[in-house]
Amino acid sequence: MKNTELLHYLSKFPAISPEERETIAGLIPVHTFRKGSILLRAGEVCTACYFILKGCIREYMLVDDEEKTTAFFTEEQAVVVFSSYNDQVPSDRFLSCVEDSTVMVGEFSREQAMYQQFPALEAITRKIVEQDYDKTRESFAAFITSSPEERYLHLLKTRPELAQRVPQHQLASYLGITPESLSRIRKRIATKRYAP
Amino acid sequence: MKNTELLHYLSKFPAISPEERETIAGLIPVHTFRKGSILLRAGEVCTACYFILKGCIREYMLVDDEEKTTAFFTEEQAVVVFSSYNDQVPSDRFLSCVEDSTVMVGEFSREQAMYQQFPALEAITRKIVEQDYDKTRESFAAFITSSPEERYLHLLKTRPELAQRVPQHQLASYLGITPESLSRIRKRIATKRYAP
Repeated sequence: MKNTELLHYLSKFPAISPEERETIAGLIPVHTFRKGSILLRAGEVCTACYFILKGCIREYMLVDDEEKTTAFFTEEQAVVVFSSYNDQVPSDRFLSCVEDSTVMVGEFSREQAMYQQFPALEAITRKIVEQDYDKTRESFAAFITSSPEERYLHLLKTRPELAQRVPQHQLASYLGITPESLSRIRKRIATKRYAP
Repeated sequence: MKNTELLHYLSKFPAISPEERETIAGLIPVHTFRKGSILLRAGEVCTACYFILKGCIREYMLVDDEEKTTAFFTEEQAVVVFSSYNDQVPSDRFLSCVEDSTVMVGEFSREQAMYQQFPALEAITRKIVEQDYDKTRESFAAFITSSPEERYLHLLKTRPELAQRVPQHQLASYLGITPESLSRIRKRIATKRYAP
């Protein structure tokens, strides 16, 4: 089951031959973490890069003992705190599983060897990071230029499944508002939608 | 002069030999754009990726005919709207020069050939994008979790030169506030700083 998902994903890249695909799928560990598992704590060094095959991972920071959600990652997104991973220094953020999550685990210590063995992976990783980077910049741009209600509508438009998958208080924190404000916004939208 | 800057930058990467460095520097065009030059307009396709050797480039969107600044890029940052560049579709954002800017110009049409000729560039590009991606995610996280005053202080701490280099109304728009609010915040901070 796990390998099927990874093989399916790798089949999207013609640069990787079917044989290489099998070899890579055998080399990259795939783990399933239970909902609530913490993959990285602030203060720890990020030693792995995750790629979500199924599930949802939340990134958050502790600000005055309060959890502030800074990102949600879902299927086919890479999850890593690069500032910690690349220089192997402590992370300022947490990563935890919002749902049971099946992920590819890329170990920092094995990265260079993997790229040397499969040079095509380098280009694929670059493309994935570029896509994720652009999505983040788009979300950031939308966040800067929007009111809280517009932010919520943008989220419903760009990541419609997310509002159903994550707890409302985490969603509110990600939108930079209180759960009460989010609740008011949802009511206002529902009223507009059903208005004559 | 231009080539000196590019050679100096490339010398940071041991994977590129001094000979390759010279060849690459001869192949990648370096242009200087005057302050106010528009490198990309919304509706146009982003056909080049820029890398700033010297200068400052602003990204913005038009929302209800109003310019909303979504990013500032300075030395040693890559500037590209990936959502437009990678799929060669129209951009939703503008890129313009806040200062006279000297940039490397990576043409989309030549990218694959460059990577084939210099495989080491692929890893370098990936590292640059990873760093930029992480900086963006850090700024986004700080933006979500902060008040406008905290955002301004975060900017002063992480990119101290920026507040000096860009017009205040553009800075305000990037912080998601009005120029008047920014002015009040600056006064408040100045008062605190000199308070007994």
